[in-house]
Parts: sequence; structure tokens; C-alpha cells
Amino acid sequence: MKLLAVQKVLGLLLVVFSATMLPPLAVSLLYRDGATLAFLWAFATILAVGLLSWAPVARHQRELRLRDGFLVVALFWTVLGLGGALPLVFSSDPSLSITDAVFESMSGLTTTGATVITGLDDLAPSILYYRQQLQWLGGMGIVVLAVAVLPMLGVGGMQLYRAEIPGPMKDAKLTPRITETAKALWYIYLGLTVACALGYRLAGMSAFDAVGHAFSTVAIGGFSTHDASMGYFSSAAIEAVAVVFMLFSGANFALHFLAWRRRSPLVYWHDEEFRFYLGLMTLSAALVTTALAVSETYLDWGESLSKGVFQTVSIGTTAGFTTANYYTWPPFPAILLLLLSFVGGCAASTGGGIKVIRLLLLIKQGIREVQRLIHPNAQIPVRMGNRSVTHRVVDAVWGFFSLYVASFVLMYLALTATGLDLMTAFSAVAACINNLGPGLADVGPHYQSLPDAAKWILCLAMLLGRLEIFTLLVLFAPSFWRN
Amino acid sequence: MKLLAVQKVLGLLLVVFSATMLPPLAVSLLYRDGATLAFLWAFATILAVGLLSWAPVARHQRELRLRDGFLVVALFWTVLGLGGALPLVFSSDPSLSITDAVFESMSGLTTTGATVITGLDDLAPSILYYRQQLQWLGGMGIVVLAVAVLPMLGVGGMQLYRAEIPGPMKDAKLTPRITETAKALWYIYLGLTVACALGYRLAGMSAFDAVGHAFSTVAIGGFSTHDASMGYFSSAAIEAVAVVFMLFSGANFALHFLAWRRRSPLVYWHDEEFRFYLGLMTLSAALVTTALAVSETYLDWGESLSKGVFQTVSIGTTAGFTTANYYTWPPFPAILLLLLSFVGGCAASTGGGIKVIRLLLLIKQGIREVQRLIHPNAQIPVRMGNRSVTHRVVDAVWGFFSLYVASFVLMYLALTATGLDLMTAFSAVAACINNLGPGLADVGPHYQSLPDAAKWILCLAMLLGRLEIFTLLVLFAPSFWRN
Ligand SMILES: [K+]
Ligand SMILES: [K+]
Repeated sequence: MKLLAVQKVLGLLLVVFSATMLPPLAVSLLYRDGATLAFLWAFATILAVGLLSWAPVARHQRELRLRDGFLVVALFWTVLGLGGALPLVFSSDPSLSITDAVFESMSGLTTTGATVITGLDDLAPSILYYRQQLQWLGGMGIVVLAVAVLPMLGVGGMQLYRAEIPGPMKDAKLTPRITETAKALWYIYLGLTVACALGYRLAGMSAFDAVGHAFSTVAIGGFSTHDASMGYFSSAAIEAVAVVFMLFSGANFALHFLAWRRRSPLVYWHDEEFRFYLGLMTLSAALVTTALAVSETYLDWGESLSKGVFQTVSIGTTAGFTTANYYTWPPFPAILLLLLSFVGGCAASTGGGIKVIRLLLLIKQGIREVQRLIHPNAQIPVRMGNRSVTHRVVDAVWGFFSLYVASFVLMYLALTATGLDLMTAFSAVAACINNLGPGLADVGPHYQSLPDAAKWILCLAMLLGRLEIFTLLVLFAPSFWRN
Repeated sequence: MKLLAVQKVLGLLLVVFSATMLPPLAVSLLYRDGATLAFLWAFATILAVGLLSWAPVARHQRELRLRDGFLVVALFWTVLGLGGALPLVFSSDPSLSITDAVFESMSGLTTTGATVITGLDDLAPSILYYRQQLQWLGGMGIVVLAVAVLPMLGVGGMQLYRAEIPGPMKDAKLTPRITETAKALWYIYLGLTVACALGYRLAGMSAFDAVGHAFSTVAIGGFSTHDASMGYFSSAAIEAVAVVFMLFSGANFALHFLAWRRRSPLVYWHDEEFRFYLGLMTLSAALVTTALAVSETYLDWGESLSKGVFQTVSIGTTAGFTTANYYTWPPFPAILLLLLSFVGGCAASTGGGIKVIRLLLLIKQGIREVQRLIHPNAQIPVRMGNRSVTHRVVDAVWGFFSLYVASFVLMYLALTATGLDLMTAFSAVAACINNLGPGLADVGPHYQSLPDAAKWILCLAMLLGRLEIFTLLVLFAPSFWRN
């Protein structure tokens, strides 16, 4: 462990992160909304802490190694989650406890979108802008993490895109490969954001809302500047833009990269994960629409369809925007969507959950086991795309799945121990570990009323989900800390 | 597929099964309880159907092959579940619909113990006896299935006891190995039952109740002759007997066999699964007791301890007896126990659930994956006992786990579609697929009020759980039916 090198990186990171206080500060000055000092103080504090961490070890020359990556990545999200809470702690409206501020910040940065704030429509524009920007930054971080960093560490669904596990070369340096890939991803992410903002603006949003919602759409974040979320606009055009960009952002960014380089949309169609993802969304939307219509939740099939499709894509990709209070729906469509959020987006998207490609692999392996019973002596490979998947990758996906389930169960138990009822606790863990946002029962509308202990547990859930479980859990292994 | 051979076996099976109507018929005559005709008709019908199935193909000589075993096993439980419903259909008190009668019969035979009957205390003794006997027969069937049949088919946790998967030899005959093993198991099962009945009798039960509860205890069934279940007796001695025999019956019967042959109780201690099983029960009982005491659910620590320990063992082994309405407990202890039922008993016990040894393997593999991230180039075997587990076995366990989860999710969705609320549906599927019995919310006390569709789905859940998922699912694979 090169703790000094880690400290140096995190110090630098905080210095850079402090700069992200400047845009909301500018918004605050522009609107004269009274939150200027909160952002100024946050800027100064984060900058100071960053410099104080960095300065003593600035001359430290040793490069980070791959194994240090786990620590850096975990601390990255933790430290920024805490730092990002500062403006919310310093501001007087909303007046949040430290727990609430951290929860909101972590929820933003992990693109979960669970909120403890109500009365958004009356909030200072700079605070609103800040929340949206947090999600956007988080989304950017996730894409880089998923495409460039985690595969090098041997974690994440992207492994499945290679013939063999990247097999973290023990002595490779972290930096160069990341920088190159990150730059390409950055352009795609920016491009999607600009296109989405234009789409929203043309569909009728104000410029402020268009930018803010483009931020949280492309990040699959789900924060909104209105309590009623997307429902505020009551606009089919806006909902259509949202659906399209949620679907895009829930797809693999490496695929966007490929499609863009080859100038061919066929790339999407050739991707097995993408086809399955679209198929699953379509099937779910059809089921939800039918359930809503049959149960007469809405007056006609048209409204059932529009609410059904929007909520299916929004919950299924784990964005978490709402045009309807899906937590008040009949049990079947409500739980169908919550369960769909466990699947979540594709690998290397900004979506949460277990990821489509892992589900696909689990299904294929389940089918293989059935086939093996029938043909016990046959060699039956599990194929993904045109390649057969190696044992090591299959093992990693199983391990991921079981740790996901285990983490879920333990946090579910912990939440019930804080006194939450069974469905509130269940859906809260699901909504946070899947980085979804809105849950069912008491956490359908917001998370304000939960006890503090529950909020901290849910912060952990968001982090575990966002860091693909392994990246965080590996830090708890004693052997990680041995030389 | 040798369908005629299958028909012959099932015909014979029904003929034998018809004989099990005679003991309750005798009880009915003894007590003159008015149910005599119901059992007589059931006896005649089952015998007739059996003979009619068997006679036309009696001269059919071809032996069953291993693959036919899947069909025989699945049909075995299905056909007996339906046949076992007959006395309940024919009897006038209780007056059950066909759905309810099948549900009760299937619940008995799969040793689930979920009931649609209330007012047990006033029921005809022969009907009460019959329900208990159904569980006992089911329990016997399960042990033989798990120890002797499923491993040959390549299904089930017992694989883990061998260095390699039994590797279903394609041309081996089914019969001889089963007969030999089954006989030994039968003595152990009978011995446990007699010992348990004596224990109950000495602890103060009537002879009738002692036999009946011994039947359902050793089978981990959970049916009782009283609405209040074990709570009816209000006796610490009876509860202690129950706890001991539930723990015994939840252990691997192959282990009992070994301990008996070697005349050494150390066999238990040397078994990794058994140690983990006891440890998990102890930990859970401690947590539940503490939660009950801290939440002041009961007046003092003594009562918290007695209710806590009994319910933990009863739900944890998936027996499902109750001395307390655990579904009215605070959320934490209630859901902890429901989740514990997913673990269930040891492999080749009469308990349900995923089985301790599979959980143990999943945990070990999860830990291995974390270790692999830290030491990417190391070969890290997964060990069970003193042996490293083969890839094929690990794959089978993962496949089992994912199909368990998938089956759970689909049936959960289906139940909510019949209109059940989210927690009722969740706990009903859990209680049935784990062959547990009592659930939470609306299915805490009994299953009477569910819609018929829900009851049929739950029958499927009980069967899937009891047949270790694979045995039933394999029949849905088109390649199973090809030559
Ligand atoms: K989200
Ligand atoms: K049971």
C-alpha cells in the first residue's frame, strides 16, 4: 500500500473538485438567491483540505499500482460524497442536518437520485443547479470507472466483452490507459448531454430546466428541479425526449464509442446485451401498461401506455424520474418495476443494478446447467456474442451476484432493525443499491422521514451499488492490507 | 423416453400409496368420527386408478434409465399430491374445494405445512391423523430422494459430498442402488420418529398427539393437530423435545447413517456443514431473542429466550411449528427468520430451502472472488471439508441458486398479479418454495383466504422447492423430450 501516493491523488482530486463549486456559485450570483456564501465557503474548505492533503506529499514520486486502484476508487466516491455535502450543510435554505446533506450529496454523486428535500420548486436556483450538476459529475465518473478503471482491476461487467479477463497486470501503471479512454468517453458524454438539453429545450423546458434535466438524464440520476419530477411538465414531447436519452444512457458507452467511430448504428443491433436490454424494456412496458389498463388505475389505455412506458424506462434504467407515483400503483406493476431495477442498465452505462449482461450470463448458465443434466457428458460452453465465456469470468459474475444478494440481505435486515416496516426497508435498499432513487411505501415520495441510522445504511448501499460491490468489499479483506 | 415404463412405475406407486389410506381409515373406525367413508372411497379410487394404469403395461419389461428418473420423480410428487387430496375432497368436515384439498395435500406431502384449514381442534381425529401421516410419508420420500435418487440424476447438494459429481452414468439402472440405501435410511427415519414420539409422550402429550407431532417433526413438516400449533401445549419440556428433533431432522441423514454405523457422535462435529448449521441457528436465536427483549415484545428475557429459540429453530429448519405468532413480531426478528428459512436445513435432510451446504459454498466462492482480485495470478481452490470442490459442482450450485432466485421472482410477480399485497405475496412464495409453511402478513396464520389462482401458484412453489428446482425445470427443456 502506498498510502502517501493515495493521499496525493485524493488531495489533487479535491483541489479539482473544489472548482465544481464555481458554476453553482455563478448561478447564485446571477439569480441573487442567497446561497452564494454557502458555495464560497464550500469552495474554500474543499480547496484548503485538498491543498493540505496534497502539499506535504507533493514530492512523493511513486506511481500508483493497480491494487491501490481499489482504495483510490472507493475513497474517491466517499471523499467527494462527503465534500459535496458541504454547500448543503452551509446553506440555510434548505436547512439540512449533516446526515441529510451527506445523504443528498451521496445520492447525487452515485446518480441514485433519492432525495431528502421537499419543496424543490421554491428552492434557490443555485442549490437546484448544484444537485443536478452533482449527478452529472457522478455519471461521468461512473462511465470512466466502468470502461477504463474497473476492468483493469478485474471488476465489472465489461470483462465479458473480452475473450479473457484483463488479468490485472501486477505492475502496470494506472494512468496512461485511463487518460486516453477517458477523453473519448468525455466527448460522448458531453455530446449526449448537449443533445439532450437541446431536445428538452425544443420540447418546451426553460433553459435552466433543460440543462438541469439533461444533466440528470444522461447520468441516469433522476434528480429534478421540481417535486413532481418530469410529471411537472405534463408534456408528451418532453417525456419522449427523456425516454430516448434514458435508453441511450442506459446502454454501454463503449458501444456508443464504437458506433461513433464506425459511423454505424448497426453496432447497437449487433450487440447481444443491447438487444436483450431493449427486449426486456419492451416486454416490461407492455406488461405494466396492460396491468395499469386492466386494473383501471388510469382512465384509458392511452394514459396507461404513456405512464407505463415512461415509468418502465425510468425505473428499468434506474433513472428514477416520475410522471406518476408508481408506489401507489397496484402491487403487480409496482413490484415488477422495482424488480426490473435490479437488472438496471447495460455494463459501462450510467445505469445501476446488476447490469443486463450479467443477467444474460446468469440465465445462459442456468440453462446450461439444465442441459448438462440431460446430456451429462457433453461439453456445453456458455457463449456471449461469438465467444465462449471463460470459467474465470463466469466465476466472477457469480461471485458478484452472490455478494449483491448478500449485501442486499444484510442491509435489509439492518434497516428493519432501525424500525422501518418490511416493504419500506426492502424497497429502500433496492432503490439505493440499484442506484434507482424512488422506492415503495414510505420511501415512495422521498427519504426525509427515515431515522438517521437508516440514511447512513442507505449511503453505504448507494456506494456498494455504484462501486460494483467488489471494489468496496475488497477493502475489508485483511489480505488486501498485507504487502 | 420410455413413457410406458413410467406409467407402470406410477401405477404401482399408486397401488402402494392406496394402502396409506388404511391407517387413517382405522383411526376413523376407532374414533367413529364420521370420516370413514371418505378414506374408503379414497382408498378404492387410488387403488383403481393405480391398477388401471399398471395393468395394461404390466408386461412391459424395459428398465427405467437415469434420464427417466426426472419424470418419475416429478410425477411421483405431483400424482401423490393429487391422490392425497382425495380423502379431503370426499370428507364433509372439513368441507374443502378441490383447490383447497390439493393445496393441503401438496403442502403435507412436500412437508411444507401451510394450511387452509382452521378449527383443527374440532376436526375428526382421522383427518388430523391423515394430515400428519402425509407429512411423514413426504419426509421419508424426500430423504430417499435427496440421498439416493437426486445425486444419480446429478441434482442436489449431496454432490458436494463427493470428490466428483456422480456423473450420471448414462446406462446405469435406477433400482439396485436406491433399494439398498433406502433401507438404511428408512431405519434411521423410523428410529428418529419413534424416539421423538416417546419424547413427546414423556413430556406430556397424549399418545395421539405424540405420534402425530413426531410424524410432522421428523419430516420438518410443521402440521399440528391444534390451531395454536406447539403453542397449544404451553410446555417447556415439549418445546425442548421439538427443538432437539427439529435440529436432528434438519441435519444430513447420510451423517446420521455414518454416525450410527461408526457409533460415534464425533461424526457430526467433523462435518463442516453441520457446524455451520448449528452456528447459524445459534447466532440467529441470539439475535432474535435480543430483538424480542429490546423491543419488549415479551415481558421478560426468559420468555423472549424461549420464544426466540423455538421460533428460530422451527423457522430456520423450515419446520414451521409456532409457539408465537412470529408474523406479528417487530420487522427485524420476523424478516430475519423468514430469510433464515431460505437457508433451510442441511443437504439430504427433511428441511427445505437452499440448504446450508450450498450457502456455505456460495460464501466461500464469494470470498475467493475477492481474494482473486487481490492476488490475480494465484490459484485459489474452494475447499469443502478436506477436498477442493470441482468446477462442475460449483457451476451446479450457482445454477441452482440463480434458478431458485428466478423461480422466486417469477412466482412473486405472479402472486401480486392475483391481487395479493407485496408482503403477503413475498412471504407466501418464500414460505412455500422453502417448504416452510407459515408466512407473514395475510399468510401468517393460514392460507385460507387466498384466491384459487394464488393457491395453485403456491402448489407449484412447494413442488419446485421440494424437487430442488432442477428436477422439475428439466422437464420444460425441449431437449429433454428429444431422444
Ligand atoms: K437514479
Ligand atoms: K415445513
